[in-house]
Amino acid sequence: MAKSASATDIFSHGDADEPLLHGGDLSAAQRQFPDAPEPFIDLSTGINPNSYPVPPLGSELFARLPESEAVAGLAAAAAAYYSAPSAAHVVPAPGTQILLPLVAGLVRPGRAVILSPTYNEHGRCAALAGHRVTETLDIAALGEADLAIVTNPNSPDGRLLDRDTLLGIAAKLRLRSGLLVVDEAFMDVLPPSASVAGEAVRNIVVLRSFGKFFGLAGVRLGFALLDPQLAARLSASLGPWAVSGPALAIGAAALADGPWIERTRHGLKEATSRLDALFGRVGLEVIGGIALFRLVRAQAATALFHHLGHDGILVRRFPDNPAWLRFGLPGNEAAWTRLENSLSRFRGSEKV
Amino acid sequence: MAKSASATDIFSHGDADEPLLHGGDLSAAQRQFPDAPEPFIDLSTGINPNSYPVPPLGSELFARLPESEAVAGLAAAAAAYYSAPSAAHVVPAPGTQILLPLVAGLVRPGRAVILSPTYNEHGRCAALAGHRVTETLDIAALGEADLAIVTNPNSPDGRLLDRDTLLGIAAKLRLRSGLLVVDEAFMDVLPPSASVAGEAVRNIVVLRSFGKFFGLAGVRLGFALLDPQLAARLSASLGPWAVSGPALAIGAAALADGPWIERTRHGLKEATSRLDALFGRVGLEVIGGIALFRLVRAQAATALFHHLGHDGILVRRFPDNPAWLRFGLPGNEAAWTRLENSLSRFRGSEKV
Repeated sequence: MAKSASATDIFSHGDADEPLLHGGDLSAAQRQFPDAPEPFIDLSTGINPNSYPVPPLGSELFARLPESEAVAGLAAAAAAYYSAPSAAHVVPAPGTQILLPLVAGLVRPGRAVILSPTYNEHGRCAALAGHRVTETLDIAALGEADLAIVTNPNSPDGRLLDRDTLLGIAAKLRLRSGLLVVDEAFMDVLPPSASVAGEAVRNIVVLRSFGKFFGLAGVRLGFALLDPQLAARLSASLGPWAVSGPALAIGAAALADGPWIERTRHGLKEATSRLDALFGRVGLEVIGGIALFRLVRAQAATALFHHLGHDGILVRRFPDNPAWLRFGLPGNEAAWTRLENSLSRFRGSEKV
Repeated sequence: MAKSASATDIFSHGDADEPLLHGGDLSAAQRQFPDAPEPFIDLSTGINPNSYPVPPLGSELFARLPESEAVAGLAAAAAAYYSAPSAAHVVPAPGTQILLPLVAGLVRPGRAVILSPTYNEHGRCAALAGHRVTETLDIAALGEADLAIVTNPNSPDGRLLDRDTLLGIAAKLRLRSGLLVVDEAFMDVLPPSASVAGEAVRNIVVLRSFGKFFGLAGVRLGFALLDPQLAARLSASLGPWAVSGPALAIGAAALADGPWIERTRHGLKEATSRLDALFGRVGLEVIGGIALFRLVRAQAATALFHHLGHDGILVRRFPDNPAWLRFGLPGNEAAWTRLENSLSRFRGSEKV
């Protein structure tokens, strides 16, 4: 069922200036549930709760302008970790979010088609760049766009398009000078073969988020992988010193830390299995997800959201899909226990 | 003498994608002067070498997405420090650099006029936003623009336009829906009455840099002060989480630290007086500057640049003005001594 709509149905230019709902805002949750026990447990994002350990940061990283050599070093580390064709294909940025309107602006304003439901900033930012924005559930419709956007694997449902499908869409788009953006924000938890980072050439732009898998979302670091000529245009929009000194140092260390990356991939898989088992015990239906979050469907989702909120546990809800809740991973045993207890009490009230 | 040129003379769209020359790149200097003594002394920027002490940074500032409450807190601290009309007039950003094309894009593409010579990114970024870019030395020409840009006080010469002049330009621009951008990157060292931050309404946008006066350029933090409706548009382009968690915390602490700010204003004035005295002793002519840097004119400027470079001291030169050198402030007694010795030796060689 394709959700088809004209651009103004999805985002008018005025709408594109309005802030959207996102996970991770604990202070808003604390205002909504003022009597909840502290500490509040934030399961509303897909961010790894067991962060990469921040290395010692010399004072010069804060004091001095970030040097071009440090930027080049980070680009090289990113090219190696993501298997991008070369460091010249890598544009480091202060988070992928700030890249979205700039990447959408790499192709002249036309028709943007977004595989939905997905991260809602894609539509807003494509509209900001002047595109008419359409959402679709129909993969074939992506090939008719000037700008096609796929989050892969997707949030919140974990939908994964295979490489051949994506390369086929890109080939169709190329005939009309269209651009394919593949947002691989959550790709780190999947086997490298699932990524199209190695194909980030010609009309394929791959976005990679640093903060989610490495659990360092506050650092603000992300990457666009793309054709070197487009990369130069994107870098020119960001200007010099786009990435902070601390982010350059942390990113270079983390992306090169193979043992931590392996351990973390394994640990996240175990944690999501544990979450699935817990949902099984309390009778919650898991309908999707990846190793950083699970998507649950429940008729009583709204009641469950509030029940968890009163217990000091924030999960992500979706105004367009009120029966859905997305659960991130608890970061420690105390959080696991509070989640299990809260879900069990909710089940005891027979609302699931 | 107005330097008048068509837009393509200054920046073609292709040029706007090319990186420009900037200060602060010590690794490039180390490649250029491989035999220079270490540590290299960087006097090539206008950044305070005695940084604000970075407060302890909790791990959650790196791990979690920056919260909207922290952004609001920083905007309030900035509004108070800069005397902006309100926090709704403040857009925090990861440095002012990344704001330049976005601010230039707040007005439809037309004629951008830049009071020159000045920070070279203004022209490049106005061209990126689609404007035809003209540089001028004629203040009256600014009133004929769609986008007028003044760096105040200016780098490298310290030129300062008074409030009435700037408000007069803004009033003229308003008749043609033009925008005045006042880049107050170096304003912190002057009396508050020199700033037009309190007038950042209607068609006046003020840019303030955090990293220069506070000596924390690696943190990447800057602000646009502007009409709340324009501020909402600018925020929408940046999207959520534009500023890192560490930058939010450091910025909020520093901007509210009145005693440090007062001490630093005083200390920077003393340091530039000391620099002037040193230049006097070695017969170098100071033709401008502010309390963060001095602009020197010397026929032998190119020779002096290389002499200093071989002594491990990097200063800023200007390809369009080869007789100019800009000197930032030495950060400690060892650096002062090396600078004085190097300049004395150069004078001894009678090249000044």
